Amino acid sequence: MQLVRGFSKLSREEKLAWLSSEGRLSESTLKVLEDHLHRDGDTQQIYGELSENTVSNFYLPLGLAPNFLINGKMRVLPMVIEESSVVAAASSAAKFWAGHGGFHARIKGNSKVGQVHLTWSGEPGELHRIVEAHRQDLLLSVEPFMRRMEQRGGGIQSMEIRESGTDLPGHFNLFVRFNTADAMGANFINTILEKLASRLTRVMEDHGKIGSFEVLMSILSNYTPESLVHCYVESGVNVFEAMVPGLSARQFAGKFSRAVDTAIHDPYRAVTHNKGIFNGMDAVIMATGNDFRAVEACGHAYASRKGSYQSLSRVELSEGSFRFTLEVPLAVGTVGGLTGIHPVAAAALEILGNPSSEELMEVIAAAGLANNFSALRSLIGPGIQQGHMRLHLDNILRQLGASPKESEAAKQYFEDRTVSHTAVAIFLDDLRNKNKQV
Amino acid sequence: MQLVRGFSKLSREEKLAWLSSEGRLSESTLKVLEDHLHRDGDTQQIYGELSENTVSNFYLPLGLAPNFLINGKMRVLPMVIEESSVVAAASSAAKFWAGHGGFHARIKGNSKVGQVHLTWSGEPGELHRIVEAHRQDLLLSVEPFMRRMEQRGGGIQSMEIRESGTDLPGHFNLFVRFNTADAMGANFINTILEKLASRLTRVMEDHGKIGSFEVLMSILSNYTPESLVHCYVESGVNVFEAMVPGLSARQFAGKFSRAVDTAIHDPYRAVTHNKGIFNGMDAVIMATGNDFRAVEACGHAYASRKGSYQSLSRVELSEGSFRFTLEVPLAVGTVGGLTGIHPVAAAALEILGNPSSEELMEVIAAAGLANNFSALRSLIGPGIQQGHMRLHLDNILRQLGASPKESEAAKQYFEDRTVSHTAVAIFLDDLRNKNKQV
Repeated sequence: MQLVRGFSKLSREEKLAWLSSEGRLSESTLKVLEDHLHRDGDTQQIYGELSENTVSNFYLPLGLAPNFLINGKMRVLPMVIEESSVVAAASSAAKFWAGHGGFHARIKGNSKVGQVHLTWSGEPGELHRIVEAHRQDLLLSVEPFMRRMEQRGGGIQSMEIRESGTDLPGHFNLFVRFNTADAMGANFINTILEKLASRLTRVMEDHGKIGSFEVLMSILSNYTPESLVHCYVESGVNVFEAMVPGLSARQFAGKFSRAVDTAIHDPYRAVTHNKGIFNGMDAVIMATGNDFRAVEACGHAYASRKGSYQSLSRVELSEGSFRFTLEVPLAVGTVGGLTGIHPVAAAALEILGNPSSEELMEVIAAAGLANNFSALRSLIGPGIQQGHMRLHLDNILRQLGASPKESEAAKQYFEDRTVSHTAVAIFLDDLRNKNKQV
Repeated sequence: MQLVRGFSKLSREEKLAWLSSEGRLSESTLKVLEDHLHRDGDTQQIYGELSENTVSNFYLPLGLAPNFLINGKMRVLPMVIEESSVVAAASSAAKFWAGHGGFHARIKGNSKVGQVHLTWSGEPGELHRIVEAHRQDLLLSVEPFMRRMEQRGGGIQSMEIRESGTDLPGHFNLFVRFNTADAMGANFINTILEKLASRLTRVMEDHGKIGSFEVLMSILSNYTPESLVHCYVESGVNVFEAMVPGLSARQFAGKFSRAVDTAIHDPYRAVTHNKGIFNGMDAVIMATGNDFRAVEACGHAYASRKGSYQSLSRVELSEGSFRFTLEVPLAVGTVGGLTGIHPVAAAALEILGNPSSEELMEVIAAAGLANNFSALRSLIGPGIQQGHMRLHLDNILRQLGASPKESEAAKQYFEDRTVSHTAVAIFLDDLRNKNKQV
């Protein structure tokens, strides 16, 4: 395959024809790409224009997790995820906790962050003094771009010069906190920052400091530890009676608590533990048209803020009472971005009851906590495979081309056995060989 | 809304009817959910069965990023992402580096990890001794489940008792390293671990130690620092001449390097920097049917392994030469899981040239490095907004219901101005008011 020039200028059909000519697209695969286009041309155009060089759509199933009682309000959660059992696990935990007060969530802040990174070879105090002296000047320079956001209750909350790490001399940043109302606000923040940067450069010119000053870059930060949601469930330990066969309520709570302790102290466990939390969170983030990369990066960095990578959830267990908490930073929006463009994202927001961005933060945290609860319940009980693999059995059978009759036999056989791809393949092989011999 | 029982047992139509009756689904939204079903019933069934309580599909555009020269082989990358400019940024960096030797990538290991977590109140040395004495016994117990994996070149690489963190007394784990060949191997690993756990429990029973021993849980770890890919581009600094207007080649390289330094030392910058890397990586991970939550959790934890959260990429700049490196742990598969079921994931693998799992790791790392390069180039050059927002202008105009004529006027107006949602809205308002007055 040679370098191709002007690829983006080709039509969709021309792009695919080129791919075929390079031996990278069979006839049958071309058909797959075609039949995944939306049947309505206008709707297809929306998807085609979301990204570049688009040739088809990738489908992910939209599932519903009902019975999420969050701050006294019942909601159905739209979840977009390819991993089986995530929606089932969320629904199961939601139903259980709906009978025990539901999820309690509150917002501990919603500040977003942006930075104008710069180098400064002068005395640090002087940089601080110049910025302070021109604070009003800087803020005035962005006023025209703030109008709409201020009408919606947003704006700049603070602005200060910070060092960029303690061991990187000469690197500073203009650290700006924003309230972006119900928008995620990325474009708004970046626009404001670029204006502030150009104004700051002019100020430095006026002070004759341009030899010691340079703007490196202006960009929002996806690290938003002050856009934080706190979510918990709580109950007496007694509600866990018969939760897991063979474990008393007290044993269940104890094992659950030790499992969370392990995820606090062992990074190998913490990563998987938090991954399970993000299974639930990302499914709602994706469904509502938000950016899961931003939330993932922020949440995992937050999990490492104490110097080691730790569980995002905690358990408090004392005198027969149980409290399970998730505290996680989140920057999401319910207006702007994809939410206003993507038809199914808009549908998901309607299903959720058109929440504000802060309500959506609460919902996402509840989804994360619910999935974490279900995962731990399975893990300390019968094991993740038993529940999980039953749901996978159908997929494996389909992949191995099992007939309806073979599937029926397999389901019976695996009723009390561990499902694995290997085990199912062996079972089908044996079954087919046996049938041949007969 | 009240608690709903037996929801998962309802048919798709009944689920949606219930949602309507609860006032959470308008007629027009129901229509949106309907018209996003795949037109072919059998294909739709595949998507419907990937998850639970599924009622429709969420579309994400599949875009193509050509000209990725990786280890001397030219590839077209399938990228699934909702964020505009990610595919364009990847393509642009790929084309540039294809003219300068392309991406160099190598696998530094591909070990996956699983753990049987346990509590042990006895003397730690005794636990080690018992496990060592029964090593063969434990391995034999899982042999029937290893057969297929061993045929494909996989298997268990090592097995040892470890402490679960230094400050969690009494918590240990049987730490097992696996080679899972071209599969991600999650189900295989979990199956083996559950078998090892039950065998280990029997061993402890035989030793009369069951009072001091308990299995807490058996589960793969998504933290796989030994499944690691190293990817870089390199060239003389002179290739950056005219890369960014107003910056000499040497200035570009210097600014680029300082921007990466900032992402090493300032977590607020590091999170956003790495998020940009994951934009590219996740788009390929998603397209190929892999699990982005696993890769995200692992990668960000790896970014924090030195005690502070840092950039995953590094720059070496010396004597006129430039080398830009990304080293990131990845656990992905090209067989099993979604890859064998999802029609468009299978198409994506074909477009990529049906890579092995190690080749896919190299491709994913190249996508991450390409996006990181383009993001930094924009940031230290004209600013992220200028390039980014031009691509967004179309979306904003559509959202604001701009007519073709209005769009044309807006595009002209914003040719040399910063695009923002607010600015476009103001422009359209002014335009419409002016037209009213005329």
